Amino acid sequence: MDQVISFDDVSGALVCQAGCVLDSLNQYLAELGYTMPLDLGAKGSCHIGGNLATNAGGLRLLRYGSLRGTVLGLEAVLPDGSILDCLNSLRKDNTGYDLKQLFIGSEGTLGIITALSIMCPRKPSAVNVALLGCENFSKVLQVFTLCRDQLGEILSACEFMDSESMRIVQTHLKLINPLPDNAFYVLVETSGSCGKHDEEKLNIFLEKAMDSGFVTSGTVATDQGKIMSLWGLRERITEALALDGYVYKYDLSMPVEKLYALVEETRVRLGSSAQCVVGYGHLGDGNLHLNVTAKSHSDALLSALEPFVYEWTSKHNGSISAEHGLGFKKRDHIYYSKSAGAVHIMQQLKHMLDPKGIMNPYKTIPSTD
Amino acid sequence: MDQVISFDDVSGALVCQAGCVLDSLNQYLAELGYTMPLDLGAKGSCHIGGNLATNAGGLRLLRYGSLRGTVLGLEAVLPDGSILDCLNSLRKDNTGYDLKQLFIGSEGTLGIITALSIMCPRKPSAVNVALLGCENFSKVLQVFTLCRDQLGEILSACEFMDSESMRIVQTHLKLINPLPDNAFYVLVETSGSCGKHDEEKLNIFLEKAMDSGFVTSGTVATDQGKIMSLWGLRERITEALALDGYVYKYDLSMPVEKLYALVEETRVRLGSSAQCVVGYGHLGDGNLHLNVTAKSHSDALLSALEPFVYEWTSKHNGSISAEHGLGFKKRDHIYYSKSAGAVHIMQQLKHMLDPKGIMNPYKTIPSTD
Repeated sequence: MDQVISFDDVSGALVCQAGCVLDSLNQYLAELGYTMPLDLGAKGSCHIGGNLATNAGGLRLLRYGSLRGTVLGLEAVLPDGSILDCLNSLRKDNTGYDLKQLFIGSEGTLGIITALSIMCPRKPSAVNVALLGCENFSKVLQVFTLCRDQLGEILSACEFMDSESMRIVQTHLKLINPLPDNAFYVLVETSGSCGKHDEEKLNIFLEKAMDSGFVTSGTVATDQGKIMSLWGLRERITEALALDGYVYKYDLSMPVEKLYALVEETRVRLGSSAQCVVGYGHLGDGNLHLNVTAKSHSDALLSALEPFVYEWTSKHNGSISAEHGLGFKKRDHIYYSKSAGAVHIMQQLKHMLDPKGIMNPYKTIPSTD
Repeated sequence: MDQVISFDDVSGALVCQAGCVLDSLNQYLAELGYTMPLDLGAKGSCHIGGNLATNAGGLRLLRYGSLRGTVLGLEAVLPDGSILDCLNSLRKDNTGYDLKQLFIGSEGTLGIITALSIMCPRKPSAVNVALLGCENFSKVLQVFTLCRDQLGEILSACEFMDSESMRIVQTHLKLINPLPDNAFYVLVETSGSCGKHDEEKLNIFLEKAMDSGFVTSGTVATDQGKIMSLWGLRERITEALALDGYVYKYDLSMPVEKLYALVEETRVRLGSSAQCVVGYGHLGDGNLHLNVTAKSHSDALLSALEPFVYEWTSKHNGSISAEHGLGFKKRDHIYYSKSAGAVHIMQQLKHMLDPKGIMNPYKTIPSTD
């Protein structure tokens, strides 16, 4: 199940089997001058079918949008063993309800995706990355607004990490921080079709960011090696955290202005019972990864974190699972982000397509028992 | 029901009631430096709630993607009178099934959308339009590929029309064709954040298009007046057709290479029984508007058109309704584009949410009787 079925180099529609590894698809497309519309840290091992089933977000969502827009069609095996063929490659199709949406993000609870069709953008010929240091989170927000204004259509990522995230990748992975002693870091990526134009835009942005005092220091990468090492500081945080101890992970979305207040409150709340509290994530998507480490698992620490984190997120109209999904552990927490009426319809949907409850049981949707 | 509820100028999320007119929202956003992610000829009268209910495509889909990606949340009144609140403004939310997708494009058959939240992009500071004349459709396709390559991230529309479309707007609306005597016309629009860069990219594209012989003549507009008059040639075709006689309308999507072959075959097939057969549409989306006019309605002409057009489209894996939806007239034609298994699931969905069949009855989904 890891074969490319077809690629249309006029429309950019790729049709492939669900077992293709994301990075292999990217390499296949790169030779044809195209790229996948999603990218994530796990690209070397994750399967595209799983990306769809979990509605993976990742690093390029800011630029290319979510899978709900880029996936054109899919084929799924239903709980009764029949095959649902919605594998078309059309950019527009308004004939009836859009059934493929049911399977995107339903975590395998309604059927198993076996093949898919996805719209792939042109591979950008120029990529630039800037790492910037900021004094406080309000300056991080100012940098975000400024880069949206100045970089416009070439902005392809805007990520942030706090000094604790940076400390953890330095400590455990021996990565080098080119901008020591900042409270926050913003990683800005541009992707465009003209290197000269993109560099001009980036330089104007950097000048304004410096002049206005939003940024205290910065470094820019245009060659692939340095780009990868700057991205490593952001992408390898998860790996570094795993080396720090037991990790409590939260993947939250909320209005971007509120993002960091939760990290600060959590830090105060936990005090010395936590080894490390880090906040980083996709600034452009309002998506915070709040991670807490401790020497080992502790019920006391867990009850200090939950339901506190979920209640805080819910109070600010956020989502308690921005891109990771609910799975087994969080399915009963769905009510923090969804109304009882909405969950009831989800339960009806589950029952309609999978009356025996055989598809990925005990996951995602609370049971009606 | 025509009020803006909120606008967040950091994230670009607009929350509004369903009765807002698309163009009013655009005007509201323009003052804040933002724009709606969709645009269509009917913008002056269509309601945003209807746009969602019909999953409207339109002129900016190539750039900003479909409503399935840009709509963040919605509120709907269900057939049992209860209110489903999915009105969040988060860019990412993977808590359970994405119920809002059920209502987008379901043509009011599952519930009535009353409010919505939508992600709005920055208003581009520079817009350029080029109208190009081509000798034949294969050159039209070459222009499309070239403009995707050369204009990359600033390409915001790529529309085409045939000489019959052009003749009809000249005849009935007295519009002036700045490039007479071409078999085909391509309208290319760029939208970007830097006028100087965009003009440079556009000039390189035009030079290559001329040098390679894809284009025989062209004109460029940068000022608002000329931009609007060039767009008028494309946007006012529908209006002109209505003045030509009775109109048989087809809204089809298919692999872009096949688009015009259907128009040619239809023309041959109908011969002198049709007054006029025109083909135009959204090249970038593989979306053809095939329209046929006659002095008055004729059953003979209709049966020469149908099922021929649907069968032809189906044979080429196309959609018999790309962006207009199925409504009353085309609901039983759904099988040309969807499998019996898929339609059965749609019927189950309809029955699940609307067991009494009171929402927009006789529309979109074939009845199970």
